[in-house]
Amino acid sequence: MLVLITYDVNTETALGKKRLRKVAKLCVNYGQRVQNSVFECVLDAAKCREVKHKLEQIIDKDKDSLRFYYLGNNYKNKVDHIGAKQSFDVEGTLIV
Amino acid sequence: MLVLITYDVNTETALGKKRLRKVAKLCVNYGQRVQNSVFECVLDAAKCREVKHKLEQIIDKDKDSLRFYYLGNNYKNKVDHIGAKQSFDVEGTLIV
Repeated sequence: MLVLITYDVNTETALGKKRLRKVAKLCVNYGQRVQNSVFECVLDAAKCREVKHKLEQIIDKDKDSLRFYYLGNNYKNKVDHIGAKQSFDVEGTLIV
Repeated sequence: MLVLITYDVNTETALGKKRLRKVAKLCVNYGQRVQNSVFECVLDAAKCREVKHKLEQIIDKDKDSLRFYYLGNNYKNKVDHIGAKQSFDVEGTLIV
């Protein structure tokens, strides 16, 4: 199924910036980065539990936010895109 | 239906920052901001076309990215949240 992972990590501190890098580095192992803080991941239920569990270990639950959207197996017509298609490296820098 | 709107606006220039503010200000009229660049909007097909059209007028399609995810009418079990729940004002500043 397609799982959309979106996150807001509070980067006011150096620790926050570190958490942000860790979140991005982890997500890249599970799917495709489509925007700076948005990953599309095709996962089975076990992998989905795994990534959620790992992300929970990284974030500060008082400061950071993770959301998961389950788009099922027939997701081709459930996504629209307008504008620039960007490729990101794991650090969040735009690859031109 | 629930429509998830996610965006990346390139804010390297003052014009970019202005576009970002405009995108956020528009989206707030259609739904609930759940993360900095993520809105959840309950829309019928006409309203969905309307917000897409208006957003297309605001963004720079060479620099900015918009994505729309259609989660249907039975969306209650399709969303999970972990961590901080934040409220934002239209300018993107965290409201404490």
